[in-house]
Amino acid sequence: MTAVTDALRRQEIELPSWAFGNSGTRFKVFSQPGVPRSPEEKIDDAAVVHRLTGVAPSVALHIPWDKVDDYAALSAYAKEQGVRLGAINTNVFQDEDYKLGSVTNPDPRIRRKATDHLLEAVDIMDQTGSRDLKLWFSDGTNYPGQDDIWDRQDRLAAALRETYDRLGEHQRILLEYKLFEPAFYTTDVPDWGTSYAHCLELGPKATVCIDTGHHAPGTNIEFIVAFLLRAGRLGAFDFNSRFYADDDLMVGSADPFQLFRIMNEIVRGDALDPANGIAFMLDQCHNIEAKIPAIIRSVMNVQEATAKALLVDRAALREAQQGGDVLAANAVLMDAYNTDVRPLLAELRIEQGLDPDPIAAYRHSGYAEKITAERADGQQAGWGA
Amino acid sequence: MTAVTDALRRQEIELPSWAFGNSGTRFKVFSQPGVPRSPEEKIDDAAVVHRLTGVAPSVALHIPWDKVDDYAALSAYAKEQGVRLGAINTNVFQDEDYKLGSVTNPDPRIRRKATDHLLEAVDIMDQTGSRDLKLWFSDGTNYPGQDDIWDRQDRLAAALRETYDRLGEHQRILLEYKLFEPAFYTTDVPDWGTSYAHCLELGPKATVCIDTGHHAPGTNIEFIVAFLLRAGRLGAFDFNSRFYADDDLMVGSADPFQLFRIMNEIVRGDALDPANGIAFMLDQCHNIEAKIPAIIRSVMNVQEATAKALLVDRAALREAQQGGDVLAANAVLMDAYNTDVRPLLAELRIEQGLDPDPIAAYRHSGYAEKITAERADGQQAGWGA
Amino acid sequence: MTAVTDALRRQEIELPSWAFGNSGTRFKVFSQPGVPRSPEEKIDDAAVVHRLTGVAPSVALHIPWDKVDDYAALSAYAKEQGVRLGAINTNVFQDEDYKLGSVTNPDPRIRRKATDHLLEAVDIMDQTGSRDLKLWFSDGTNYPGQDDIWDRQDRLAAALRETYDRLGEHQRILLEYKLFEPAFYTTDVPDWGTSYAHCLELGPKATVCIDTGHHAPGTNIEFIVAFLLRAGRLGAFDFNSRFYADDDLMVGSADPFQLFRIMNEIVRGDALDPANGIAFMLDQCHNIEAKIPAIIRSVMNVQEATAKALLVDRAALREAQQGGDVLAANAVLMDAYNTDVRPLLAELRIEQGLDPDPIAAYRHSGYAEKITAERADGQQAGWGA
Amino acid sequence: MTAVTDALRRQEIELPSWAFGNSGTRFKVFSQPGVPRSPEEKIDDAAVVHRLTGVAPSVALHIPWDKVDDYAALSAYAKEQGVRLGAINTNVFQDEDYKLGSVTNPDPRIRRKATDHLLEAVDIMDQTGSRDLKLWFSDGTNYPGQDDIWDRQDRLAAALRETYDRLGEHQRILLEYKLFEPAFYTTDVPDWGTSYAHCLELGPKATVCIDTGHHAPGTNIEFIVAFLLRAGRLGAFDFNSRFYADDDLMVGSADPFQLFRIMNEIVRGDALDPANGIAFMLDQCHNIEAKIPAIIRSVMNVQEATAKALLVDRAALREAQQGGDVLAANAVLMDAYNTDVRPLLAELRIEQGLDPDPIAAYRHSGYAEKITAERADGQQAGWGA
Repeated sequence: MTAVTDALRRQEIELPSWAFGNSGTRFKVFSQPGVPRSPEEKIDDAAVVHRLTGVAPSVALHIPWDKVDDYAALSAYAKEQGVRLGAINTNVFQDEDYKLGSVTNPDPRIRRKATDHLLEAVDIMDQTGSRDLKLWFSDGTNYPGQDDIWDRQDRLAAALRETYDRLGEHQRILLEYKLFEPAFYTTDVPDWGTSYAHCLELGPKATVCIDTGHHAPGTNIEFIVAFLLRAGRLGAFDFNSRFYADDDLMVGSADPFQLFRIMNEIVRGDALDPANGIAFMLDQCHNIEAKIPAIIRSVMNVQEATAKALLVDRAALREAQQGGDVLAANAVLMDAYNTDVRPLLAELRIEQGLDPDPIAAYRHSGYAEKITAERADGQQAGWGA
Repeated sequence: MTAVTDALRRQEIELPSWAFGNSGTRFKVFSQPGVPRSPEEKIDDAAVVHRLTGVAPSVALHIPWDKVDDYAALSAYAKEQGVRLGAINTNVFQDEDYKLGSVTNPDPRIRRKATDHLLEAVDIMDQTGSRDLKLWFSDGTNYPGQDDIWDRQDRLAAALRETYDRLGEHQRILLEYKLFEPAFYTTDVPDWGTSYAHCLELGPKATVCIDTGHHAPGTNIEFIVAFLLRAGRLGAFDFNSRFYADDDLMVGSADPFQLFRIMNEIVRGDALDPANGIAFMLDQCHNIEAKIPAIIRSVMNVQEATAKALLVDRAALREAQQGGDVLAANAVLMDAYNTDVRPLLAELRIEQGLDPDPIAAYRHSGYAEKITAERADGQQAGWGA
Repeated sequence: MTAVTDALRRQEIELPSWAFGNSGTRFKVFSQPGVPRSPEEKIDDAAVVHRLTGVAPSVALHIPWDKVDDYAALSAYAKEQGVRLGAINTNVFQDEDYKLGSVTNPDPRIRRKATDHLLEAVDIMDQTGSRDLKLWFSDGTNYPGQDDIWDRQDRLAAALRETYDRLGEHQRILLEYKLFEPAFYTTDVPDWGTSYAHCLELGPKATVCIDTGHHAPGTNIEFIVAFLLRAGRLGAFDFNSRFYADDDLMVGSADPFQLFRIMNEIVRGDALDPANGIAFMLDQCHNIEAKIPAIIRSVMNVQEATAKALLVDRAALREAQQGGDVLAANAVLMDAYNTDVRPLLAELRIEQGLDPDPIAAYRHSGYAEKITAERADGQQAGWGA
Repeated sequence: MTAVTDALRRQEIELPSWAFGNSGTRFKVFSQPGVPRSPEEKIDDAAVVHRLTGVAPSVALHIPWDKVDDYAALSAYAKEQGVRLGAINTNVFQDEDYKLGSVTNPDPRIRRKATDHLLEAVDIMDQTGSRDLKLWFSDGTNYPGQDDIWDRQDRLAAALRETYDRLGEHQRILLEYKLFEPAFYTTDVPDWGTSYAHCLELGPKATVCIDTGHHAPGTNIEFIVAFLLRAGRLGAFDFNSRFYADDDLMVGSADPFQLFRIMNEIVRGDALDPANGIAFMLDQCHNIEAKIPAIIRSVMNVQEATAKALLVDRAALREAQQGGDVLAANAVLMDAYNTDVRPLLAELRIEQGLDPDPIAAYRHSGYAEKITAERADGQQAGWGA
């Protein structure tokens, strides 16, 4: 049990700054009271989540949504709040120029502009001290024939190469894939295979980022996790959950058993410890639910799935597997999954000087009322679509 | 062949006013030059499509996007342009109040407000002379437990009943269904079965509207068409196409064979003639392609699929089917599908005094240049998300 | 808590005789030692499951797989073993005649033969005292054009009508639906809507059977449960689980949270008690795992999901729902789901004089060794494909 | 146009011996009159298809279904009939030993046996002169926890390595992938990425085989085609079509537009000519339709899709793509797709001394009647499940 709590004590989950801002669907973005108006206020909110849960010490930024003049100052600000800046996310999808693609656009001028944005993001990383450059491209096409699939791969490879070559020694690329949306016919990095192939070509500092909502129906995500761990190319997760497409719901809310199976592969592959270099990040949209408590809940969901995965009796599992006892092997896994780990995590929090119930603690903290009052004026942060 | 051309001559396809406005995804709405700024300008554009194709004589409105003070005047304006106003579409999804639902909201005040909007839409129908009230509800939930599924059905039934009872003698409800988006866990009218069951309960003036992009992967849409025709409850189509989810691409662009199979059931069920009461409407978003030519192309795609369906040798098909000759029956269908019907349609257009190539005619008309210049100022119409 | 254990004590789960026989995929049927060779031996095995779990008092038969000369004798035999005969399942898919369909076949002779089989099944029900006639039709087509969708509905309706009219006063039809397999283009009863529409037409003794593996990807099954309960037309479940298509894995093994959500609607709709007429049946294939313990595990999985659903704090849930508190409502549900109900169920078993661990009890019982030895000769039961 | 007909004249499609035998679903295998009883009779039937279509000069074998004592003699027999032996397909899924896997089985004895079968297949290739060893593994698991995903990859890699090292200079591996079935939780080679990664590791003689029915819903197959062509790792197609899962219907029957888009990438990547090393094979099951004419139809469907792809105006397409004209680019593609290429192919056949209508020619040939009479006795070939 000490091994379990030790592992849980070292766990780190990265929060996305944008999850604190307003978001929505193409049909409507609903606004919420108290939503941050600046990168600093997003960091404030993230710091609250970390103070209450103890496992969310870093905040990912999204450029240009979190553009500031002085990233060193932002970094210092974060430290004062008890957190640090994490991955830098690029955004090459919200400019009129990018209608037909960014780095894969048929127009070389637009490709240049997009690639320059990627390079600029590495500049920012130099200032924030971030290790990870997360690249997600919305690039693709909507209609058969619209553009040449092969050529677009060439253009993608060129932009990635240029960006890769700009990376510092301790920096790396996390290349995200997504089946569809906003592109509706082809997407230029639609699946893990495409991301993996480009990473191999680029070199050791390029790894795959798995967003749990970005797959075709029926895809076995834990298989991909195991495969990439074995290949040494899993860089990060963007956690969220989905019933249909990229719904960006709270991680663990749609299929908690799947989340457990994913974390089970992480534990099996000895990849939980932050020292092993896998970044566990949230990437969610809280369209209708209160944002900060939704993020607290999400963090707790990942913790609970992790605790269950750590409880799997590995020796018994292996014995059953080796003996070909299908039911016994499945039972070992389910035994851990069916365990209620909430008491264990409550204890861990108490031991760390935290409230055993972070949600209740948030409710009683008065923070929601405070930001609702303080942030009543000004422009709320959002996706800017 | 006379029967084929006669049927094609009588075909009518309804255009959605909103397809002429800007649209996009949650990531970005790209704007286009020349986009209309008012309901009248949308009607202007729709009238151009009708003048060039000869089969798009009506325009569906979306309330409140097309709200005007004087609907009779709008109706008269449409007539002057050579078209008429068609279905009235309600919108109970873009008000902050509707965050947790409209007619199924747990809050009775919001349900009242939403239902009042539906009743107001019938008032508008009285003024426009529209027959069809198209109801699409984005209502649903994002998280298990969020609301009670059963209660929401009760609330839905109550709002539908009140609206149904308000209908005039020659008015009817088209109840649309959609699997998901913007709701990501439950949708209150997720499938044709739900829509059909409510229609049965309401009475003969309630029929199902099939949006071709609103189904789970693998759903056989033509089966639903045949089933509803047999049951006398198919009211309308919202045509568009999709590779993944509700992509709202040009109808016929993703799976032209599916569109043909749908039209084949229409012809088989003798439901093509406008006199038979099925409304064939487009419901699309032209996010990255030029809007007016995209709509012309869509209209032509429906025409071509219809022509092929009309060419199916029904006697030979029935004989092969009755004889259990799988390959022969399939071959009869494929023979029609593989026929190039473009010459036939070009001839039909010439006979009707139209240009045989509506796309080229549009390009040469100067209309695009004209509206780009004339509509440079002002607020472009859009989804308003 | 008394209410919870009372409800659990009354719960009944029906076992399918065929799950004890060999099964497989189109690629291979693997045989297992000790598999039954007769309906009586299947009943023996089912009785073992009931003796160990206390909640599986009935066995569904499949005709002709379980054809015997004297059904009254078989019924008496079952009673001696401590179980009773349950639903009668018809099989109109394993005769060369049914290649192009059974009750929907274009050939009237074959339709007659298939319908006669259904009527014969009611004769058997008269002898076994069964209440439920479960109808699943593999009927459909593989190729567009192969047969007429509408005509097939007419034929289906006629066969159902004839069968319905033959039902005794306390007998009823459970009409199952399935998206696809073995038909690969259209299926004549592909979804709940089709089944529901036919049931409405037939009369009050016709209800829908939900097989949890028979849906398109992304279908929300608990919505269908709630809808049919509200409509008074849910007759039965065929429980199993799936990651992809109709995988027929052990219920609760692929998505235990979904099973919980389904049982939550059952409890919410007050439909758990056997007196309320919903039949909870397993319908699974244990292709690679030992069959009897797999069925014990499946029964326990349903029990555990039920216990969790019974633990949902309905008052708190309703309050959060009515107040529009998305996170609180979800948390009430998740609190129940995250509870480890195994101790509660172990206690219940002890109280009923059972071993608290039915799987271990089976392992220690020597039954597996006994049947392996006794049933070494003869023809093992199977699907007969 | 000469370029088009030249390319069509050189096209080659490989037929699978097993498509001539009986097949079915797990529910039922329906038998057909005249089905072959031996590898020689399968070759006879394949030769008929080639004689009628002129584009199917080779036959793939499946071991052990096509096991013979003397492969050189079989090869000579094929040559006499006017065809040659093609790829050797291995079968490590129909032995009781393979219940929990073949080359990935936890039991080293079984892995050895399975790998030996692969090596034996290379021995056969030495005798038949086959270039291609097609490997499809049904290996996987049905339940979470059943076996270790990572370990299974290690075992797979070891078996592939041993087989690869056994290949002769002009032999190669085609590694097929499949999402699911018969394994229902994990499959050891579930997607193109997994296959590609193993091929990279193995060396230049390992390439990916795309079975068009083996993907998750919504997968863009032509993207994979383009990607693998660019990477130089596309080895072969197993053509068939599907509406739902791995339905194995006639290629082009479910989504002819998809088949066209696939062939369009082939033409775009200059990969049609047999000299370029891509094998175009059918892999289908004709469960309910007459087998030989179904295969003729399938061959014709591939031909028609190819002819349309060859008709695409590449210069116009590229110009529209480069200019960012979405509609124009799509229109160029659709113009080719909408062309009726049957007259062109009829002409080509006449020029080659063939009947312009191979289906009619088959019907009139008397071959069906001949084999029905001659093959009335004996054991029909089938899948042997």
